[in-house]
Formats: sequence, structure tokens, C-alpha cells
Amino acid sequence: MNTRGDVAGPALSGERDLIERIRARFTADPAVLPIGIGDDAAVAVPDRGALQVLTTDAMVEGIHFDLRFSSFEDVGYKALAVNVSDIASMGAVPRLALLSLILPERLTNSQFDALLDGFERMVAESKVMLAGGNITRSPGPLLVDVTVVGSVRPRRVLTRSGGTVGDAIYVSGSIGLGAAGLGWLRANARSGAERPDDPELAACVDRYRRPAPRARVGALLGRNRAAGSCMDTSDGVADAVTQIARASGTGARVDAAALPIHPGARRWFASQGLDPVGAALAGGDDYELVFTVPARRRSRLKVVTQQGRGVPLTRIGELTPDPAIVVLRDGVPEPMPQGFVHF
Amino acid sequence: MNTRGDVAGPALSGERDLIERIRARFTADPAVLPIGIGDDAAVAVPDRGALQVLTTDAMVEGIHFDLRFSSFEDVGYKALAVNVSDIASMGAVPRLALLSLILPERLTNSQFDALLDGFERMVAESKVMLAGGNITRSPGPLLVDVTVVGSVRPRRVLTRSGGTVGDAIYVSGSIGLGAAGLGWLRANARSGAERPDDPELAACVDRYRRPAPRARVGALLGRNRAAGSCMDTSDGVADAVTQIARASGTGARVDAAALPIHPGARRWFASQGLDPVGAALAGGDDYELVFTVPARRRSRLKVVTQQGRGVPLTRIGELTPDPAIVVLRDGVPEPMPQGFVHF
Repeated sequence: MNTRGDVAGPALSGERDLIERIRARFTADPAVLPIGIGDDAAVAVPDRGALQVLTTDAMVEGIHFDLRFSSFEDVGYKALAVNVSDIASMGAVPRLALLSLILPERLTNSQFDALLDGFERMVAESKVMLAGGNITRSPGPLLVDVTVVGSVRPRRVLTRSGGTVGDAIYVSGSIGLGAAGLGWLRANARSGAERPDDPELAACVDRYRRPAPRARVGALLGRNRAAGSCMDTSDGVADAVTQIARASGTGARVDAAALPIHPGARRWFASQGLDPVGAALAGGDDYELVFTVPARRRSRLKVVTQQGRGVPLTRIGELTPDPAIVVLRDGVPEPMPQGFVHF
Repeated sequence: MNTRGDVAGPALSGERDLIERIRARFTADPAVLPIGIGDDAAVAVPDRGALQVLTTDAMVEGIHFDLRFSSFEDVGYKALAVNVSDIASMGAVPRLALLSLILPERLTNSQFDALLDGFERMVAESKVMLAGGNITRSPGPLLVDVTVVGSVRPRRVLTRSGGTVGDAIYVSGSIGLGAAGLGWLRANARSGAERPDDPELAACVDRYRRPAPRARVGALLGRNRAAGSCMDTSDGVADAVTQIARASGTGARVDAAALPIHPGARRWFASQGLDPVGAALAGGDDYELVFTVPARRRSRLKVVTQQGRGVPLTRIGELTPDPAIVVLRDGVPEPMPQGFVHF
């Protein structure tokens, strides 16, 4: 990657030139976005018969990312990806994005362009349209704040509170990658190594840098009404299970043996003397979906699996009448680890 | 004001407690916002038959505000007000807001609450509903990033490009207040004085701290189809006239004698040896509307004036076939001053 934080380049242009650079690369379909970048606000044609879904999430240098570990492309990519994940967890489809960039004085034009490269890649992957945004200088850290507007049909919305006792708990994909990837990067910060040699651990580092939000799975879960509740695992599986159980007024039991812990993550945690189950449950920065499925809807889940383009959906436990939230290890219930806490 | 930057208080609570504090004070109408704060995203019922209008604008400590000059209430109020102004300039009505808070370590709970007090006041005045947001710590300055979603009927949208040669140019309210207010605050930063004794200059300082976005005028201009083009004066009247003329493919002539320069601002500029006309045209931080009205729609403007609750609408010039953008002073055209440039 040739756009790390230490690469020099021409000093940053003025605000209007930067807006022009953005406008030049993001085209808008006038049928969806009759007025895009260039007016005081954007104007969009709503998805007829659908509800609006709104989310915003900021990535702050020094808090959510470290330019020793992530390129500017990674930061641009991830800033949109985490918001797409939030939309997916509601069973919705992302449509429009707003990009608010808070730029430190030291940023260069090539770093700015690299950030846009990553953002643009996620725009293409998630099929959202950039509707507008805002650019400002700052005496502080680089900050990328993204808002995504999505749409979902009425009665297709997934919430945290839609679970019921007896529902099976599922998770998409594999878990532990984000925490293992960040762990490896921190442990190797001084070595100058960019990526581990172990391909499975390298996959964790790659996923930490560029999460794969489960946009398709989320939309399918909503459309097929397969899930009762859903939440993404940005703050970890333990957190998602806990939030869903609390909001649904149930307890939860997760079976440690069933957890789809990524093999690279499992090896990394073990190599650091960590319990892989606890580390994978508590670790944040995965963007999988945790969702619950009532018994009578399990056949609908098959459709989601078939159309989900190979993303595994793993049953990891169930919502219980007992209000405790536990992880079952060799048949013995233990308290669920605390989720990832930002502050 | 008892919530200036130097007031101490208990250290800031954790993220979840802060979200709880926000949720407790902003109630959502379930008919508009069936799912508000507390899920991965908010879900809103769209305004039927209307287009969505989207804008986002950030306020950064040290760039857009100075805690020596503005209280935390002022910052919270203004962060929403500037976005409401952008929605108004499109002829739209604001409906929903997302609040992204980037909080420095030194912030206290009472300062956080004061910021919410100001935000809440503007929520009430503009009748928007807080749909969600995001809170994160930062090693940098306080930053308040707000997204507002509004709605407007098709064919009622106002843009910068809707002007035609011969249209009269109007501005709402009075101008120069923001620049004069900020000027006084900067000049008196060391004196410890909070407000000037001169009530007209005090009005400028008050307006700088808490802009009055022209939500009603903007919505009326759109609804009555009185205006062809519109833009707010956040970067000054000179900038708004220039942007509208350029986007509309015309020139513009503004009559200096017609400008509704606020008397407090006029006196302040003169006292500083500045040309009041140039300073009022170039000065930013007013949130009035500049708009153009074709001759055949001038009767519709009367309706806007009648229903605009006393906000004056002043004709200040017209769009010209000559592409020059000029200000007419004693019958002599001079180049329009540069608008306010952020960087």
C-alpha cells in the first residue's frame, strides 16, 4: 500500500477544490438523487412504500483507527462499511450516504484521494449513492463521520427487541477476526511488518482493516422475515447477545463449542495466552450479524442461506426464560464476558 | 450563562450512560419515528409524496466556535441551527436530526448536559425529532456533527441554479450581525466582558451565538413557489449571490444602498475602520436566505411576507445578462467582495 500516513505529497487544497474532487468521482443517478453535491442540501426520491432507516457513525484517529495499522484507503472504506453494517442489522438496504470529513492540517492531497479511493470502493460494493457531505479543517485528529440512509418495507424491520424465549441465536460468518487482527497489529507495531505470514492470521488483519458488512444477509433476513431480532457485532458477539436478550426481555445461552471462531483468530488468541472463546466473544471490530430465529421460521432461514452467497449462518445458542446470559462450556454455564466498551 | 468552558463538574460518564441521558430527554412520536435511539439505526415513516432532503454540517472547536465566546448551550443550539438553515434554503421542512458528538476527555457531565440543553431548544424551535446519533471520545477538540433530514414536495425544491436573467434578488432579515458579533467578541476576548452595552451590538453578539435559521421563510418560499433559486448566507451575502448567479448562468447586480445592514453591525464595522457595505456583504455566520424572484411571481412573495411572522424580505438587486457580479455604489459598479472562505 502506497498511501500510509507517512507518505508525503502536495499540501491539501482549499475546501471548494476538495468538494470538486469529490463531486467529480461520485456520479448520481438523477432518478434517485435529482439534486446531489453542490447545493445547500441533497434531494432524493424516497423508495416508495418503504420506511427510512438512518444511522451515523464516526471514526476518529487515535480512537477507532491508527494510521500505523490502517492506510487512508482502509479508513475511507471502513468508515462507510461500519454504517452499512448498522443498516444491514435492521434488515434494511443502504441507499444514500453523507460524508463528513474533518481534516487535520498535515493531510496531503494524495492522502485525501486515498481516503476517497477506499470510500468509493465501499460505495461500489454496497451500491449506495453519495448524496453530500461536509469538509472542514481541524486542529485535531482525522475524523470521518458517515451517515447512511437506507430503506426497508414495513413489517420487515429487525430490531434488538424482537426475540422471544426459545428462539435460536445465530451468527453470520466467523468471529474473532477483528480483535485478532488488531491484536497482531499492536504486537507488531514496532516491527514494521505490514501483514503476518500466516495466511489465516493475515485474513484477520485484512478484515480488521476492511470489514465485510453483511449487507446481503441483513437484507435477506428482513425480506424473508426469517429473523425476529438482529444486531451487528461491532462491539462483539457477547455484547450483541446481551443487548438482544435484554431488549427482548429474555436470557440467553450460548454454546462455546458452536462458536464459529476463525482459525487464525483462535491460533492468535492461544499464542497470546488468551482463552480463544472469551476473546472471540468479547472482541469488537467484527461486523457480523447476530440474530434470533423462532422455530416456526427456521425454514425461511434456508432461503437466506441459499441466497447469501456462501456466508455461513451458525446456530450458537438460544434465548432462555431464565434471565441469566451465559456461555455453556463443557456443559457448565459461565457468565457471558463483558462486551467491548469504548469508554 | 453558567456553563462556559471554564466551569468544572463531575467527569464525563461512560458512553452508554450518555446515550441514556440523551434518550431520556428526547421523546419520539412513534407515528413518525417507530424506532428511535437504542437500535443500530433509527426507522422513520417518510412524509408521503415528498422528496427527502439531506444535509450535514459539523462544528469544530477552534475552527467554528471558541468556548471563550460561546457557551456549551450556544454550541448545541447552533450546531442544529446551521443545518436547519440548509434545509430551509432548499424550500424544505426539517423533520429528523442525527447528532454525532465527538467529546474531548476534559468535558464534564454538566457541560455535556448544557450542550444538550441548547440542542434541545433548537429541536423544539425547529420541530425536528432526534432520531439517533453517535457518541465517541476524542483526543482532539469538541466536535458536534449534525445531519438533518427534511422533506419537500416535488417541484417545490429551491436550488442555487433556478435563477433567470431579470429575477429580483432578495435577502431575508438583516445582514452583518454574525461578522459584527464575532468581531466584537474577538476584540473583547481579554476584557472578560460577555456582551456589549450597546443593545444593537449586543443583538449581533447574540445572533452570532444563536443564529435564527429562516425555517419558516424557506418553507413558505418553496410551498408558494415564489422563489426561483435560494441559498443561505452562512458564508455571506456576497458568496450566496455569486453562487446563485454562477449556478444559474447569469451575472448579478446588488445595490449597496438597498442592503438591510443591521444598525449595530454598521456601527461596529465603522468603529473598526471597515467599510460597512463590504464587511456586511463579505461577512459569514449570518443564516439569512438569499433568493431570486421572477417578475411574474412577485405577487406570490406577498403571501410569504404576510405569513413570514415579521421577517423582512428586502429586494437588493437583480440577476443580469452581463456575467459580471457587481455591487452598485452611488451608481458605480464595483466587483463583489470575496465571500467568506473557510480554508
